[in-house]
Amino acid sequence: MKKAANEIAVKQVKIQDGFWSEIQNRMIDVVIPFQEKVLKDEVPGVPKSHAIENFRIAAGLSEGEFYGMVFQDSDVAKWLEGVAYSLAVRPDAGLEERADAIIEIIEKAQQPDGYLDTYFIVKEPERRWQNLQECHELYCAGHMMEAAAAYYQSTGKDRLLHITERLADHIIRRFGEGKERGVPGHQEVELGLMRLYQVTGKENYKQMARFFLEERGKNPDYFYEEKVKRGWQHWGQYNLNPIDNTYNQAHKTIYEQDKAVGHSVRAVYMYTAMAALAGADGDRRLYDACLTLWNNIVRQRMYITGGIGSTAEGEAFSLDYDLPNDMAYAETCASIAMVFFAKKMLEIEPDGSYADIMERELYNSTISGIQLDGKRYFYVNPLEVNPGVSGKVSGYKHVLPERPGWYECACCPPNLVRLVTALGAYAWSESGDTIYSHLFIGQKAELEKAEIVVESSYPWEGRVSYRVTPKKDGSFVLAVHIPSYVKVEDEETVVTVNGEPVMLKDCLRKGYLYLERRWEENDRVEIRFAMPVRKLFANQKVREDAGCVAIMRGPVVYCFEGTDNGEDIQALRIPRQMQAEALLCREGVLKGNVLLKINGFRMKTGSDELYSEERPQKEETVLTAVPYYAWANRGENQMRVWMLEEV
Amino acid sequence: MKKAANEIAVKQVKIQDGFWSEIQNRMIDVVIPFQEKVLKDEVPGVPKSHAIENFRIAAGLSEGEFYGMVFQDSDVAKWLEGVAYSLAVRPDAGLEERADAIIEIIEKAQQPDGYLDTYFIVKEPERRWQNLQECHELYCAGHMMEAAAAYYQSTGKDRLLHITERLADHIIRRFGEGKERGVPGHQEVELGLMRLYQVTGKENYKQMARFFLEERGKNPDYFYEEKVKRGWQHWGQYNLNPIDNTYNQAHKTIYEQDKAVGHSVRAVYMYTAMAALAGADGDRRLYDACLTLWNNIVRQRMYITGGIGSTAEGEAFSLDYDLPNDMAYAETCASIAMVFFAKKMLEIEPDGSYADIMERELYNSTISGIQLDGKRYFYVNPLEVNPGVSGKVSGYKHVLPERPGWYECACCPPNLVRLVTALGAYAWSESGDTIYSHLFIGQKAELEKAEIVVESSYPWEGRVSYRVTPKKDGSFVLAVHIPSYVKVEDEETVVTVNGEPVMLKDCLRKGYLYLERRWEENDRVEIRFAMPVRKLFANQKVREDAGCVAIMRGPVVYCFEGTDNGEDIQALRIPRQMQAEALLCREGVLKGNVLLKINGFRMKTGSDELYSEERPQKEETVLTAVPYYAWANRGENQMRVWMLEEV
Repeated sequence: MKKAANEIAVKQVKIQDGFWSEIQNRMIDVVIPFQEKVLKDEVPGVPKSHAIENFRIAAGLSEGEFYGMVFQDSDVAKWLEGVAYSLAVRPDAGLEERADAIIEIIEKAQQPDGYLDTYFIVKEPERRWQNLQECHELYCAGHMMEAAAAYYQSTGKDRLLHITERLADHIIRRFGEGKERGVPGHQEVELGLMRLYQVTGKENYKQMARFFLEERGKNPDYFYEEKVKRGWQHWGQYNLNPIDNTYNQAHKTIYEQDKAVGHSVRAVYMYTAMAALAGADGDRRLYDACLTLWNNIVRQRMYITGGIGSTAEGEAFSLDYDLPNDMAYAETCASIAMVFFAKKMLEIEPDGSYADIMERELYNSTISGIQLDGKRYFYVNPLEVNPGVSGKVSGYKHVLPERPGWYECACCPPNLVRLVTALGAYAWSESGDTIYSHLFIGQKAELEKAEIVVESSYPWEGRVSYRVTPKKDGSFVLAVHIPSYVKVEDEETVVTVNGEPVMLKDCLRKGYLYLERRWEENDRVEIRFAMPVRKLFANQKVREDAGCVAIMRGPVVYCFEGTDNGEDIQALRIPRQMQAEALLCREGVLKGNVLLKINGFRMKTGSDELYSEERPQKEETVLTAVPYYAWANRGENQMRVWMLEEV
Repeated sequence: MKKAANEIAVKQVKIQDGFWSEIQNRMIDVVIPFQEKVLKDEVPGVPKSHAIENFRIAAGLSEGEFYGMVFQDSDVAKWLEGVAYSLAVRPDAGLEERADAIIEIIEKAQQPDGYLDTYFIVKEPERRWQNLQECHELYCAGHMMEAAAAYYQSTGKDRLLHITERLADHIIRRFGEGKERGVPGHQEVELGLMRLYQVTGKENYKQMARFFLEERGKNPDYFYEEKVKRGWQHWGQYNLNPIDNTYNQAHKTIYEQDKAVGHSVRAVYMYTAMAALAGADGDRRLYDACLTLWNNIVRQRMYITGGIGSTAEGEAFSLDYDLPNDMAYAETCASIAMVFFAKKMLEIEPDGSYADIMERELYNSTISGIQLDGKRYFYVNPLEVNPGVSGKVSGYKHVLPERPGWYECACCPPNLVRLVTALGAYAWSESGDTIYSHLFIGQKAELEKAEIVVESSYPWEGRVSYRVTPKKDGSFVLAVHIPSYVKVEDEETVVTVNGEPVMLKDCLRKGYLYLERRWEENDRVEIRFAMPVRKLFANQKVREDAGCVAIMRGPVVYCFEGTDNGEDIQALRIPRQMQAEALLCREGVLKGNVLLKINGFRMKTGSDELYSEERPQKEETVLTAVPYYAWANRGENQMRVWMLEEV
């Protein structure tokens, strides 16, 4: 197997897009500053963070006790990673200075042996590295490594990079073949080590990542033995109950795992690291292991919105085809992780099915996690809510009908920040003689072989153009992902290069349109396709979607809210012969979104009996659908994605 | 308002019925002897009961510690009540002797002041009557009173009756206006006191019941104040958290309560006591309060099977129209309680809608609680199960796909025993000049005005006859409940008296057919009606039944099991034009049941993709439906009551 394509650095790309620029700006203007204030305990009414103060105490700059979760450090790391991308997108000397100051504190907190975790430095120094299952030292280390690599790539500054290199060296001295055997309870260090390897080229970081991945599940009793040995527990009272190793994917080796199980974020972080390693080493066996898990997710365990992890218990994957809409967990972070995973798979093999999923996640269940004004966040992304029941009745308590504010365990907002600020890096890869465009996003990209300016009306219209300016020799291939829903045979689907039509079928392989030529300055590729409203049917094995259709237009999944459609959305029906009109919303909070008007029915029963032999009657009505990601921006109301079809 | 009709004693009726005799025999031959052994700790592998031993210890006949739940005594009481009815149905000198011996122990356990609760006698004598919220002394007392009344009525023996009279007197000395104010945490003593009143005619028992009912919710802080005052807690650690008073219906007075809320068994026991009191006193205001709650249940909060209490948390009522099929709690005991409630409402007002619900409960969600062989029991009666998910995944853990054996908290089996052994008492009431027949059950009834022999092919065929032999003057009315699903206009609906057709419409009022004449020996009423397979639609507000139909024939709700219909029952469709054939099952565990063969469809998708634009295709198939009460008798498999209709 060939090695993976090169990653693009965030600073190579400037997003200039009708859809994404605004979301990126919201991250930079609203979320990053807000999170900075939270980390510094400057926001009244928000649960105390103390995260930076913990580093100050560990650094000897402040007196006091550690406060917060055992993984509180990771909040600082995730913020720094977002800041790094944000500085690449839009330089901000003040922000950079404040980030540098925090990095200085982190450096002072680091111990002489390279150890870095404020919980254990401040609170329980004698208990370091004894509880990999629960205490997340490796998880925090991984996030700090990712932040360091990003900060170095964006700013050229290597102070944090060196801190994390010393930390990685400390970990390498302790763990590995012939040393201490162990695996992290929450995967993340594997990703951090791969990022350090990517930036520094140091093989031992990659080897350490491989150890943590391949060690996993070799001894399925590892966490239990660790618990017996140390005789204490971080969460709850010490007990010798057995440990459910499927929860953190330690039940089998990564080569034996054939189902996506357990905590969905841990799972997909691990799969992403596996794919990163497979790509770095050209490791076919490892790529096949990734593919097995990828296929299980996208073919059996993913909501149509891209949401994964359908059960609240353990924020976890459930069983094949068990996808309840009103009880979904579908954590925002898990969908973000799927974008990471898809990116790594794409770098190995430019298969449009990966890009299709990346697109599905980006336009639906990732950004559904944030209110349109950037101020409130969903951790759980249901496909149906019912006010009065959702968030209240047993089984539905995790499913909130409106986005809450900042959480104590605020994992999703900074994860969204690092995704959206780094969006440019997901849009491209370069490999040998080929530039791959994975996403239709308006932008200016400085790639190795060319500068490319993309103009896009996506996701609302199928109209994208690429203006290519080669840097040296113009002989390369531009491979553009064409989403799988685009009907290639449709006469409205047209691709031209400098106005000359391209025979699509001849150039399309596995979802990518391969345009090979000697590119010259200002060569222009135009892509046009129709964007009809589509009905989607779920596999018959998905109980909860039986008899239902979901509505999509382009990459966007739509939903139906009470605000537009009245009470009892379950009584509405989508006609078998659907007529749908797409309308740009010109005012209100949904301004700029394309809404759908659909001819439909409301079922009415004459009697108000609970059960009756009287057949309900159809009454014509016009239904309104809004993009799923934009739901719950107009107050608490009922919402459904999957709608019954008329009988 | 008139006072209620007279109750019939169990011993007045001998069930001789193709459907019910077998179930009654199973209670007498299997469940009562099994429970006796459990109570005596003679069944290896079943959680220790110790219930009789607790009485022996309290009586000073044995040494040892109390063991079991704080309400362990009630297991003995419920068994004795079942035994009492069983002795009326089929005398058994050995059983009666053993019951007498247990009653003797109970008598010895009773304290000189009349107090009787082995937990507090043996374990915490200083804590008597301090924790009405949790400790169920009044609950246990109520069950013992019911047992005593039943035992007296069946055997004429008054030893247990006197024990419970002394107990009631003890309670009356302690609680009431101008004495200690208090209400039980789990209602039941109100029913017990009303039964004692019924048997002894002593007004103060009825007045005590009225106090407990009317005191409820007058001070909504009562349980909290009680907790603060005593400073200890029975379940869990002592805390001063507020108490959710909706859980046990203490949030408002009984006259203010307009929704059925909280623990469904507590609720309906209370409503039943309210109706019993309303009937005994001819109290219109109280009857109206009952009616409000009755209507809320049957119009907004009841499954089509009669199951009530749709949420597992608190085994409780949820919200109007919130009736999830796969997460239903629908406890067997709650459906049994609905039969009690319906009976008391019918005694006040012979309205067929009460009898319809009684019938719905009896043929569906009560007896679904027991395996056909009588050996295993459902506490939870879902309308959909999915093996792998039901009983396992978060939210569905309480929903078992097969009946388990004996539970530690074995409330439902003895409740089924006392329902089914006393079935004759539910079939009739007598009031003034009228005999009411509420149920079509084959039997010989010795009523005040007449001996009536009923022959019935119910529930499988609409063919019932009444042979009437008046006792004195034959001038009375025989009022027979005609189920509301029977089409009165249908030409197959025929009622004759001695072969002479009766003009149905002229005689039918509120679901009862009033036959007034001077009855003579062997007068014969014949009732015939067609029993087509019916499709039922749920109210559009019931989200979980949207687009679905349920199938009934006569009073029996049907369901579809995997064993008969293959995998993925959600992919099956009921045709809009349904053709259904009813077939008597002649072999196997379902022998004697009428099964349905229905022309139907299975939806098939060409692709195995999770989501696809490809419309699923219909494939014709024959569906098999089995009576809901008989589900889960052929191994673990998928089951659904509500089925999608074809599109």
